[in-house]
Amino acid sequence: MHILVTNDDGISAPGLLALAKEMSSIGQVSVLAPEHNWSASGHVKTMHRPLRVKESALLDGLPAWSSDGAPSDCVALALLGFIPEKIDLVVSGINPNANIGHDVTYSGTVTAAMEATIGGVPGIAFSLHAPEDFQGTLDFIPAARIAHRIVAQVIKVGLLPNLLLNVNIPYLQDDQIKGIVVTRQGLRVYRDRLDRRVDPRGRPYYWIGGDSPTAIPDEGTDFGALENGFVSITPLNLDLTDFQALNSLGEIRW
Amino acid sequence: MHILVTNDDGISAPGLLALAKEMSSIGQVSVLAPEHNWSASGHVKTMHRPLRVKESALLDGLPAWSSDGAPSDCVALALLGFIPEKIDLVVSGINPNANIGHDVTYSGTVTAAMEATIGGVPGIAFSLHAPEDFQGTLDFIPAARIAHRIVAQVIKVGLLPNLLLNVNIPYLQDDQIKGIVVTRQGLRVYRDRLDRRVDPRGRPYYWIGGDSPTAIPDEGTDFGALENGFVSITPLNLDLTDFQALNSLGEIRW
Repeated sequence: MHILVTNDDGISAPGLLALAKEMSSIGQVSVLAPEHNWSASGHVKTMHRPLRVKESALLDGLPAWSSDGAPSDCVALALLGFIPEKIDLVVSGINPNANIGHDVTYSGTVTAAMEATIGGVPGIAFSLHAPEDFQGTLDFIPAARIAHRIVAQVIKVGLLPNLLLNVNIPYLQDDQIKGIVVTRQGLRVYRDRLDRRVDPRGRPYYWIGGDSPTAIPDEGTDFGALENGFVSITPLNLDLTDFQALNSLGEIRW
Repeated sequence: MHILVTNDDGISAPGLLALAKEMSSIGQVSVLAPEHNWSASGHVKTMHRPLRVKESALLDGLPAWSSDGAPSDCVALALLGFIPEKIDLVVSGINPNANIGHDVTYSGTVTAAMEATIGGVPGIAFSLHAPEDFQGTLDFIPAARIAHRIVAQVIKVGLLPNLLLNVNIPYLQDDQIKGIVVTRQGLRVYRDRLDRRVDPRGRPYYWIGGDSPTAIPDEGTDFGALENGFVSITPLNLDLTDFQALNSLGEIRW
């Protein structure tokens, strides 16, 4: 079992280290991750410029590669042959913030897993639901243990090439986690506001600001699970067709 | 009817001009588009830096705004209040290449329309399926007329806030187009290859290269329609939950 580990927070992120360490007790691990943070960077395929890859290391010295590409570029580089050995599974994370609801198409963590699936390799994204008001250094160890458990179970059941899982883990100690549930994508509530400012030269510029997003904790959803102390596994599909709309729009005389 | 027009090819692209001109015979048009090309840039929300917006103009002098953000940032800027008047519909394009199958999460054209839908405004992405071996200047006028016809029909039927359409138009004259059909997302076949080169200083760099993608022309799909001379309208849904997998994975003891 050869597992590629990547993330969207960059090669020096503690969540990447925690995930890579847990994966190395399941199989051979290769790490290829972005040099810097790519949060909310979306599903990128960099074609207008070449990519560089550097020999690097994780915080504990574990050898790794870093690239100036996006998370999905890192996965593409690896699968297209930068890493010559066949890759059986791609895991991405652990992101310090939940990726739920509409976050999935923005998220570098999730789009890295999407890139794996498009390349015919199962992909799993892991994100931690840290409390919004959290101060200090996040402990990724309990979440990494959950990631281990989920990956081991997925391997046992059988790795399907189109498997794409979006896993969100509450920020709780092992004995406080109520269990692991399979959920549907919930509804994010973004609270973005445009913050117009004026630079020292009198010219305006605009921050996309506002409050952190919240979500609707409906039962059966990703956010509903997190709010109740459960780990959420949401299986995603890259066929975005709206089949209900397909039927209703099909009746229109265009 | 107030229509925001954007694209991912940048403010000076002829496809944007053709689309904006046709839309201006339907309603009031505002144009806010990226300064430069953002193809395959994905669904971006730029939060690590502020965005600039410049007064600009389309090729024919029509006033427009350009931003240093991604296509989805342009939509966010507009909907969050940079453009003060309420926006009823966002259209994006016309992209010179088809956006079919798995292209949808990469595509700046489509993710701009996604951003609209997430903001509660219907979004429609328009792309032209130019022949792969096409040389010369593309004529966007017939495709823009098709866009007009589709937008007029969508307005007539009623604009739903979660409407997200991915429209692909064959590169044909009006009388050669066989009709407009509602389709499901098909299967892209990417043929990317990693192209390793060495710079003048002896250091390697990597292009994501290879042949242009192709697709499987299954009946009822986006690509199937294009290949048979039809305009393809694929309704998309931003709930990516794989409900089949949800059932099967729900039976596992995690």
